[in-house]
Amino acid sequence: MTDTNTNMRLKLPITCFILEIILIILFGVLVEYDKETDAKKWHHSNHSEYDNDFYYRYPSFQDVHVMIFIGFGFLMTFLQRYGFSSVGFNFLIAALALQWATLMQGFFHGMQGGKIHVGVESMINADFCTGSVLISFGAVLGKTSPVQLLVMAVFEVTLFAVNEFILLSLLGTRDAGGSMTIHTFGAYFGLMVARVLYRPELDKSKHKNSSVYHSDMFAMIGTLYLWMFWPSFNSAITAHGDDQHRTALNTYYSLAACTLSTYAMSALTADDGKLDMVHIQNAALAGGVAAGTAGEMMLTPFGSMIVGFLAGIISVLGYKYLSPILESKLKIQDTCGVHNLHGMPGVMGAIVGAVTASLATKEIYGDGLKDVFPMVAPDGRSASSQGGIQAISLAVTLGMALVGGLLVGFIMKLPIYGAPSDASCFEDSIYWEVSSKKLLETSKLSNSPLQFMISLVYYTESDYFGLTSFRFVLPLVLLSLCL
Amino acid sequence: MTDTNTNMRLKLPITCFILEIILIILFGVLVEYDKETDAKKWHHSNHSEYDNDFYYRYPSFQDVHVMIFIGFGFLMTFLQRYGFSSVGFNFLIAALALQWATLMQGFFHGMQGGKIHVGVESMINADFCTGSVLISFGAVLGKTSPVQLLVMAVFEVTLFAVNEFILLSLLGTRDAGGSMTIHTFGAYFGLMVARVLYRPELDKSKHKNSSVYHSDMFAMIGTLYLWMFWPSFNSAITAHGDDQHRTALNTYYSLAACTLSTYAMSALTADDGKLDMVHIQNAALAGGVAAGTAGEMMLTPFGSMIVGFLAGIISVLGYKYLSPILESKLKIQDTCGVHNLHGMPGVMGAIVGAVTASLATKEIYGDGLKDVFPMVAPDGRSASSQGGIQAISLAVTLGMALVGGLLVGFIMKLPIYGAPSDASCFEDSIYWEVSSKKLLETSKLSNSPLQFMISLVYYTESDYFGLTSFRFVLPLVLLSLCL
Amino acid sequence: MTDTNTNMRLKLPITCFILEIILIILFGVLVEYDKETDAKKWHHSNHSEYDNDFYYRYPSFQDVHVMIFIGFGFLMTFLQRYGFSSVGFNFLIAALALQWATLMQGFFHGMQGGKIHVGVESMINADFCTGSVLISFGAVLGKTSPVQLLVMAVFEVTLFAVNEFILLSLLGTRDAGGSMTIHTFGAYFGLMVARVLYRPELDKSKHKNSSVYHSDMFAMIGTLYLWMFWPSFNSAITAHGDDQHRTALNTYYSLAACTLSTYAMSALTADDGKLDMVHIQNAALAGGVAAGTAGEMMLTPFGSMIVGFLAGIISVLGYKYLSPILESKLKIQDTCGVHNLHGMPGVMGAIVGAVTASLATKEIYGDGLKDVFPMVAPDGRSASSQGGIQAISLAVTLGMALVGGLLVGFIMKLPIYGAPSDASCFEDSIYWEVSSKKLLETSKLSNSPLQFMISLVYYTESDYFGLTSFRFVLPLVLLSLCL
Repeated sequence: MTDTNTNMRLKLPITCFILEIILIILFGVLVEYDKETDAKKWHHSNHSEYDNDFYYRYPSFQDVHVMIFIGFGFLMTFLQRYGFSSVGFNFLIAALALQWATLMQGFFHGMQGGKIHVGVESMINADFCTGSVLISFGAVLGKTSPVQLLVMAVFEVTLFAVNEFILLSLLGTRDAGGSMTIHTFGAYFGLMVARVLYRPELDKSKHKNSSVYHSDMFAMIGTLYLWMFWPSFNSAITAHGDDQHRTALNTYYSLAACTLSTYAMSALTADDGKLDMVHIQNAALAGGVAAGTAGEMMLTPFGSMIVGFLAGIISVLGYKYLSPILESKLKIQDTCGVHNLHGMPGVMGAIVGAVTASLATKEIYGDGLKDVFPMVAPDGRSASSQGGIQAISLAVTLGMALVGGLLVGFIMKLPIYGAPSDASCFEDSIYWEVSSKKLLETSKLSNSPLQFMISLVYYTESDYFGLTSFRFVLPLVLLSLCL
Repeated sequence: MTDTNTNMRLKLPITCFILEIILIILFGVLVEYDKETDAKKWHHSNHSEYDNDFYYRYPSFQDVHVMIFIGFGFLMTFLQRYGFSSVGFNFLIAALALQWATLMQGFFHGMQGGKIHVGVESMINADFCTGSVLISFGAVLGKTSPVQLLVMAVFEVTLFAVNEFILLSLLGTRDAGGSMTIHTFGAYFGLMVARVLYRPELDKSKHKNSSVYHSDMFAMIGTLYLWMFWPSFNSAITAHGDDQHRTALNTYYSLAACTLSTYAMSALTADDGKLDMVHIQNAALAGGVAAGTAGEMMLTPFGSMIVGFLAGIISVLGYKYLSPILESKLKIQDTCGVHNLHGMPGVMGAIVGAVTASLATKEIYGDGLKDVFPMVAPDGRSASSQGGIQAISLAVTLGMALVGGLLVGFIMKLPIYGAPSDASCFEDSIYWEVSSKKLLETSKLSNSPLQFMISLVYYTESDYFGLTSFRFVLPLVLLSLCL
Repeated sequence: MTDTNTNMRLKLPITCFILEIILIILFGVLVEYDKETDAKKWHHSNHSEYDNDFYYRYPSFQDVHVMIFIGFGFLMTFLQRYGFSSVGFNFLIAALALQWATLMQGFFHGMQGGKIHVGVESMINADFCTGSVLISFGAVLGKTSPVQLLVMAVFEVTLFAVNEFILLSLLGTRDAGGSMTIHTFGAYFGLMVARVLYRPELDKSKHKNSSVYHSDMFAMIGTLYLWMFWPSFNSAITAHGDDQHRTALNTYYSLAACTLSTYAMSALTADDGKLDMVHIQNAALAGGVAAGTAGEMMLTPFGSMIVGFLAGIISVLGYKYLSPILESKLKIQDTCGVHNLHGMPGVMGAIVGAVTASLATKEIYGDGLKDVFPMVAPDGRSASSQGGIQAISLAVTLGMALVGGLLVGFIMKLPIYGAPSDASCFEDSIYWEVSSKKLLETSKLSNSPLQFMISLVYYTESDYFGLTSFRFVLPLVLLSLCL
């Protein structure tokens, strides 16, 4: 399946080289170690080596890092012939996005002396922003070229940073786990891009837009890492002490409750009562999304479980009943169902956060109030206006995501990036060497009909487990029998 | 393979919803943040944010969490057609068990003011208890419905908490890594359940009760995560400082030595000298189990290596010679061989712990004695009576596990949970949508014997490895036949 | 494929048992807890439990541990029929090497009172040394018996410890992430062994020396874990505080830049512009190797990105153009291309380290200079002589690796270890029970050419993907044909 249009020989290297060289130059000009990573600055003041924030953030960072590369990467390998692209393009765009995000977030969140200061917190924030891009990637999975995805990443990271700046810096919104900034933004941005890139004839590759047994097993690796490390994700940049501790705990209970409601709903909505891997792989994670804003608040385990329980139900219902409607009515082909995993649960998380914030009192939070709600704490705004701000932030995020996705979708639609044809969507071999092809070419067995068959067997096998070429082999076998 | 008996459409949702709603109500009534997770309580006293136990337990918790969901989940994916159920039911029952364990352990281990206080330590303890349930799951793997497993989890968690209370609180037993409370209890409980659920005609599904190449690869993911993180498991709830450090170190050496003896024994006991994946996947972990009690003691690296070395030998011999006898003589069909991985090494670990405890002196432990043996330390019981208590604890645990497993086995045997028939054991498609099934149903071929063959091919193959193209192949075959 | 020569029934158990018993005896005689793991010593002095180094090194250790067992293990599973051996022999020799390394490194790096003191730092160092052995394993992957590999591990660990002693203790070289001690040493040692073990007729198993679709997916698990945790690897044993923090940060940016240049070069060097999994799996990691020496220095994010960017380019070019030359001209059959992933990037890292060291000033490092360059710091050697020492260290390492590899290669060449024949290289079933093989053997089909085809199908398929039901289908097809 070689196609001059999708040939990446020049497009991809040029894009990667230009982007990386720009990044290196900007890093050279703008980026400096912060005082916790700089040898001179750190040793200037008097403290224990063990006070370095590395020891209190880096384990959380590593968990988040695993979620970004293994979690998102493998979650998307459920497609039968798109494993290389799922995990490989995830890897590529994440590696770009985290560098660009460091610059964009550093630019918006306060440069000091004209310099962006980096340390473990900027690494976590960059990974968070990357997560948002990967959510959008889920909506367009299988239908885009790597160059298109790199273009999307550059623009989305920029808009993400603007939206995050408006929320966190201008409005004083609380959103530690990113129900709004990461999940809602990433999902609706991606859905809008998918809308613009709508393919009326996508049915041509419908047979590849589904899973096979082993691809679902690989996807479960992604699911479980996301599920296990979500408590680290939501707590990674909250205030130290009780805040990180409580956020992790709340998320843990939310996810556990969500898992039970997901299994229940998956069996209940199937005619034959059988569980659907799509639901398990995705909806069981909705509890983490929905606890993204309120997780750091005094939501209580009880509240967290209710949130998770409802998020699982909503998410399965979305996969079952809403996704088909989105496709047929709104022309949004959402490959991974990010609307059900990140969109609706993200909105729900934002609402839960607004309500929980508006109920905050000094009674409940004691002196911890200033950690969770710095704007409310001393003698700032009232809790109910914090709640109002939270609600407004959701609206802002939705607006930014929809308009941003629309614009970026049109940029991505330009016919210059080597997007696949309708018939070759969801297919690795467009952009990847798929191994056994070479074998076949180099195999020295070629002069007897039996040996031809042998190489065919190789070809098919080796290819994709995947005896796809038996369609060639067996007729030949039978023909030779007849002769 | 749709069957009204195994149809989960109502059974599973009803069970999940009832259990989760009960859990939510009980959490609402009984559970509170502890003083390290509560905003008010934490800020009430004067300390650094960095003193929060989150920073000294959470990394261990995350390692344990990975062992529970990835470790146990993927270890059991070795069966050729049971990957979805292995990792999926593991996920479901673990999510239930950790919530129920929080309540049960909180109830037994001291409520304050009528409330259960939760934080990272209760998360670790809940995961530990969950581990015990998953060990029992290994004994009945492939022969039980998800509803049966949920029922087992509820009862087993309860009995686990009772046994743990007797040992740790009443007797003052030391068992940080759970050789007794987790491994011995989980294994013998599961074996007893397997005995009660004995299926004389299980041979009917014998061809599915084995691995294929790639399923063994998935299982190795589980094995390695268990192996790598076992030092974190054994040290997760020991006293801080040297105790956690030493426990991790001892477990590391025990596992390394165990791995060498496992490979040696696997080759030695095979007629053709070939290594058996079953041994590598399981017996190499026995060193972690066997260091579960004595790991926190001054076992020394030397002692740890001897323990691991012997555990590997015992475990391989168990797989090779004892498991067949258990099945034929005692009618215990132990799918994963939990007797060899958790049962015997657990008992061995308990004995090693008793001996090591009885040898403890102030000479060796110095002021650290009070951390490891609080009952011995100040002017409490003698070391040898601590050793005696450890031995008694093993007997108590075995008794609780066997009687508990017997009773719960009979509860699970009630014909209301949708257990699979003998012929459909070890088969995912009973409880899961397996992707290509739908293809089969929508295929319009249905009335000739040859088409029976086609559906056979579909069912067996495509289902599992994406041989979707057979729908092209076989028609061609048949056409050529007709010609 | 049973062969008396490769039969491991006695060879492997004898080797494992002798080695492990020697290890246990030496541990009994020589090894003691250090003061952070010993109950008495730790409680002798007055400090907080939280000051124990466990809390500041163990999370890094666990990340390194995952790289060794999952990272290296799965990276090498790319071969189509060598997954069991890749991950299984990796497991075996790592378990041996870490024990032997504890002794060797303890012996060279300062015994106190005739005893080797162990704690988390010795665990990290042992894992590092093990990494070097696993790099060499990559060069000879598929062509060696497990006994040969154990012999290699014993000698290589010893030479590694000598080289490390010369560099770190005698010369005062800085090499925290092991560009020289681990990567350069492991790669050139392995290449030299591969040279000595050159097999002119390896073409006989050429068809198995390549990947298939799913084996590339498994390999990506290894790649990503190595990639994600490399910041922890490089920072695991640097000084505490800013040093660990900075090293992790530098490595993070180096890897991100390397990923972009790898994708660019992979597409650019392919005739059809398609990405090659070999490059993605390996070259994207070169940025971590190349930041191994300078990572702890004030390399800056800018410098790190340039290093990573170039490392990716060099590594892809190596895979594409240099590896074939190494094989045809120098007779080095480097299965995993360790020269491209560890060799050249390691040398590059050493040079970058020498240059960065020679540019170190009190101006830049402030009081942190003594942490990074203890020999330079107070009034020691000049920065430029530190740079010179770094360069000399590279030469020493290359010499030790090449001479050591030559000698050990000849030891490994002795025809007593059960090495595979040329035709049975890259084949698991030599050393492992492969499940469906038994099926084939017990199948009663054996005397016609058609049955040859059937067994061919069996062998290629069932073996590896569980298409066991072909034994039912094909005979039926053929029977119906005869009728």
